[in-house]
Amino acid sequence: MYHQLRKLFIGRPLHNRELSAEHLPKWKALSIFSSDALSSVGYGPEQIAVTLAVPGLLLYGYIGYVAAAILVLLAIVTISYVQVSQANPGGGGSYAIAMNNIGEFPALVAAASLFADYTLTVAVSVSSGTEALLSAFPALISSEVTIDLCVLFGILMIVNLRGVRESSNVFVWPTYLFVLSILVLIGVGAYQAFTGATPAIPAESSVRQPFDWMVLALLLRAFANGCSSMTGVEAISNGVPMFQKPQADNAIKTTFFMAGMLAIMLAGTTFLILHNHILPQENVTMLSLLAEETLGRGWMYYFLQLATMLVLYLAANTSYNGLPLLLSILARDGYMPRYLGARGERLSFSNGIILLSVFAGALIAGFGGNVEHLISLYAIGVFLSFTIAQTALVVHWRRERGAKWRIRAIINAFGAVITGLVVLIIAITKFFHGAWIVLLFIPAMIYIFKAIKQHYTDMAEQLHLSIADWESLKQGPKGKNTVIVPVSSPTSVVVQTMRYAHSISTDVIALHITTDREMGRKVEEKWKIWDPGVRLITVYSPYRLVIQPIIHFVEKLQSNKAAEDFITILIPEFETKKWWHRFLHNQTGWILRTLLILKKDVVVTTIPYHLKK
Amino acid sequence: MYHQLRKLFIGRPLHNRELSAEHLPKWKALSIFSSDALSSVGYGPEQIAVTLAVPGLLLYGYIGYVAAAILVLLAIVTISYVQVSQANPGGGGSYAIAMNNIGEFPALVAAASLFADYTLTVAVSVSSGTEALLSAFPALISSEVTIDLCVLFGILMIVNLRGVRESSNVFVWPTYLFVLSILVLIGVGAYQAFTGATPAIPAESSVRQPFDWMVLALLLRAFANGCSSMTGVEAISNGVPMFQKPQADNAIKTTFFMAGMLAIMLAGTTFLILHNHILPQENVTMLSLLAEETLGRGWMYYFLQLATMLVLYLAANTSYNGLPLLLSILARDGYMPRYLGARGERLSFSNGIILLSVFAGALIAGFGGNVEHLISLYAIGVFLSFTIAQTALVVHWRRERGAKWRIRAIINAFGAVITGLVVLIIAITKFFHGAWIVLLFIPAMIYIFKAIKQHYTDMAEQLHLSIADWESLKQGPKGKNTVIVPVSSPTSVVVQTMRYAHSISTDVIALHITTDREMGRKVEEKWKIWDPGVRLITVYSPYRLVIQPIIHFVEKLQSNKAAEDFITILIPEFETKKWWHRFLHNQTGWILRTLLILKKDVVVTTIPYHLKK
Repeated sequence: MYHQLRKLFIGRPLHNRELSAEHLPKWKALSIFSSDALSSVGYGPEQIAVTLAVPGLLLYGYIGYVAAAILVLLAIVTISYVQVSQANPGGGGSYAIAMNNIGEFPALVAAASLFADYTLTVAVSVSSGTEALLSAFPALISSEVTIDLCVLFGILMIVNLRGVRESSNVFVWPTYLFVLSILVLIGVGAYQAFTGATPAIPAESSVRQPFDWMVLALLLRAFANGCSSMTGVEAISNGVPMFQKPQADNAIKTTFFMAGMLAIMLAGTTFLILHNHILPQENVTMLSLLAEETLGRGWMYYFLQLATMLVLYLAANTSYNGLPLLLSILARDGYMPRYLGARGERLSFSNGIILLSVFAGALIAGFGGNVEHLISLYAIGVFLSFTIAQTALVVHWRRERGAKWRIRAIINAFGAVITGLVVLIIAITKFFHGAWIVLLFIPAMIYIFKAIKQHYTDMAEQLHLSIADWESLKQGPKGKNTVIVPVSSPTSVVVQTMRYAHSISTDVIALHITTDREMGRKVEEKWKIWDPGVRLITVYSPYRLVIQPIIHFVEKLQSNKAAEDFITILIPEFETKKWWHRFLHNQTGWILRTLLILKKDVVVTTIPYHLKK
Repeated sequence: MYHQLRKLFIGRPLHNRELSAEHLPKWKALSIFSSDALSSVGYGPEQIAVTLAVPGLLLYGYIGYVAAAILVLLAIVTISYVQVSQANPGGGGSYAIAMNNIGEFPALVAAASLFADYTLTVAVSVSSGTEALLSAFPALISSEVTIDLCVLFGILMIVNLRGVRESSNVFVWPTYLFVLSILVLIGVGAYQAFTGATPAIPAESSVRQPFDWMVLALLLRAFANGCSSMTGVEAISNGVPMFQKPQADNAIKTTFFMAGMLAIMLAGTTFLILHNHILPQENVTMLSLLAEETLGRGWMYYFLQLATMLVLYLAANTSYNGLPLLLSILARDGYMPRYLGARGERLSFSNGIILLSVFAGALIAGFGGNVEHLISLYAIGVFLSFTIAQTALVVHWRRERGAKWRIRAIINAFGAVITGLVVLIIAITKFFHGAWIVLLFIPAMIYIFKAIKQHYTDMAEQLHLSIADWESLKQGPKGKNTVIVPVSSPTSVVVQTMRYAHSISTDVIALHITTDREMGRKVEEKWKIWDPGVRLITVYSPYRLVIQPIIHFVEKLQSNKAAEDFITILIPEFETKKWWHRFLHNQTGWILRTLLILKKDVVVTTIPYHLKK
């Protein structure tokens, strides 16, 4: 039953040799890796407008300038990341580059930032996608978080557990449909704007207060908010190994194409928002307001909203391609638990996929699906990893000294300075709006990475097979094994346990703990009559404890045994036919194991006894 | 640390021979067993008034009649229960009497009713006690449920885990203080009433609609509500074995004294409520309103409120003396899990005490500390058990035919009919107010009791030591034991596991599962160099599964082994120094155990390997 369901949802296991088939052509890779960046059109311009439109509309006219700054930044980041793909065709993005070029600490900062970024991408994209849906169908508003979680666990997690190749088949069209419908929107809107009676940019939308410090602070905050449009640009450089050959080349072409599309879409929608003087509203996205204004509430409007929803859900999927891969690289390097590095039966990194789903689900549930709160936590990690990657590349080019290395180094140095500035701007202007959480999270994660690494290093040392170990096993004296079987009364369970005891040792002791002297004597008499060839030791426990006397007994034996000897305690455990029957039996085996596990050379074994009904 | 805290809160273990010391003199037993009944003065009259005052005050004048009916019922129940104590000095109350006289089914009905009753008593008394506190200190209203749960788990559970004798020392005074302050209240109130200018019962409070069917229905519902005042009367008869000798005699005297006090207090407070025309209010108890009216808001008022609070908390304690004892009797008879029958190290029935606390806590949290909702669920179980106990006594007297058996039988038969009628009245008038829950709960509990009994009976049969078993162990062939040690690479963990393997068998197989042929070959080479005298078998797992190939291997061995042979799988398990390190290791041992536990003659043993850091 479980296996059939699993097969239905997850699919048949894939053989090791099927791994190489999981490479993507450009048109598929674009849809998989760039949906994150492109979909930010769904919330990026709105994030700028929210900051500038709220204080009495006085700054609305600055939206265009902020948008322009974002586009310039986008160009810088794109060119920088093209160089990342070239320098580091092995994938792994900022973390790998930093580790190779500038050392462990910045690499871990990048890894922690990416961890935060990927998780937040899933949370933000899923909840924005649902908001696009709710803008079109307001009746669903009360089910917002439920829809979020269904999409997350019911679709994204399942599809990704099935594996990358298939996820691209399911998810290839939304990106193109979204791009198409945004281009139609911009086209229709521009036509209306330039042929309509009203001026292209109406007078009201140029409202702006004279420039002063307060204005600057708000503009910087709007800029910081708008930087969320740029998250996801790095996705391609992290996934270079998933491209078809020539991998780096294909990745670079895809990056340029993606950045171009993003620039056109951001510029177009921002122009139309200004032109139509759209203001932020509760429960409806600005893109939805713009589409309604431009296209009317016809089929094209609904098409656009659904395409937006799908592309945002797909954007969440970008992280599913990124984070599990990053975690597996971290696991291989010993900074994360080893099992995050193993491919599951469908060749995907199942544990990482589940981990990501759980974290993102917790974020969505915790913030009640409210995107604005989540975006506060967002862009800082992204730009931190941008900065680190580019700093590392400067070192990389200097070391390699290949063709045009100076120009390349200068481009990346410039990129590093700019994105570093952006980090500062976001950290300061958004500090009290949630940036502090990320600024605490990153050092905490670094601490965890290092503690895990330390543990694995310590362990490797301890597990090292020394020559002494080696010899001791081959030539040392073989240990005796004293077996203790706790017995409450002679039953067929005792017979089965004794059979096992005889199969592993000739030195078997039956131990009876009694809370009542009279009962103890009766058991001893029965034992004598039965005479199973095993000595019975009875211990009286006036305080009605059962576990404690067994432990004392073991401790006494332990202090008298030879160094190479073992003590084994056999606990019969009832395997019940019905699940609830187990609550009718003591968990003595489990308790004893927990209490004795720290004793040297003492082993607690439970012998299953299968009840027939 | 844990042990010291435990000692501080729970106390030193008590020896078996200290058990007999836990008997109570009358004055202590009164306070322990009758606080439940007496404390109902805190909510009983209010429960009547709430039903009658709400529909436009038209029935307020009937309160006196309903109260009178309750007093008559109290007299009948008291006399009946005096006979219970005589007939059944062994304790166990309704359940034991019914089991001895009229069979399993009514006994289980009684047990289920008592189970519901005791649990509800704790929930209702704790939340009423807190309401008495909140009436005096309204600022605390928002912390109501928190206070409830602190009292429940922080005081009641801990004190009872310490044991019965000490619980009486802590809890002896509140009952007397409460009785005293209620008597003062009644005295002062009566003096004011008969010497004051106003008539003893003012005209307004005699408002009543002419009698018709609707009035009858409301009166019956008020009566049903008022019956909650009588819960707890049976507590003494359940606890006869805790009295000093002569036990039955002392119990009977205590019962009469308690009933007399309860009658006086109920009659007095109801009279004063009518006289002062007190109306139910939100968030303030009627007793508080009455006390304020009569005594003013001086120290005596606060004293009364605190005494009420304490006696209600103490009333909850009554259930702690009743339910764990009942559960232990049920466990002894096989209707509840065995471990509920064992006295803990302090001689109290620890498991039952914890169970009761958890159930009552869940009720309080579930209903948000709202007493009225809980009382709806209350009286029906109590009166059902009254009815069963008395029916059983009729049979008992007929069988014994002792002195005056006819009179005794008639008294109990009359009691059974009256209380049976009360059950019907409550079940019908309160059906939609929650009685249906109890009416579903009781059959469900009976089903559970019977299913548990069935399981223990089946098990006893299966565990019976047959002559064949007996002989097989003494004379049958001793089984071989094939030991499998899964190995990922040769480390010191493998050495330790192999040492244990050699101590239990000469037939040891090292099993290496590889997901990569190359790695597998490397391990085989290392093994050859090491040459530890154990054959290594390598299995290639192209689907990257580790557990499944081990299971297949075990299944193949299993199908070839002789009937008396065993297969043991040894799984090394890392015992980490820090708690969180365990998340860095696979749980292979646990998974294998779970998957292999159903296989015959296969034992999974984990060998702890202690990491030093």
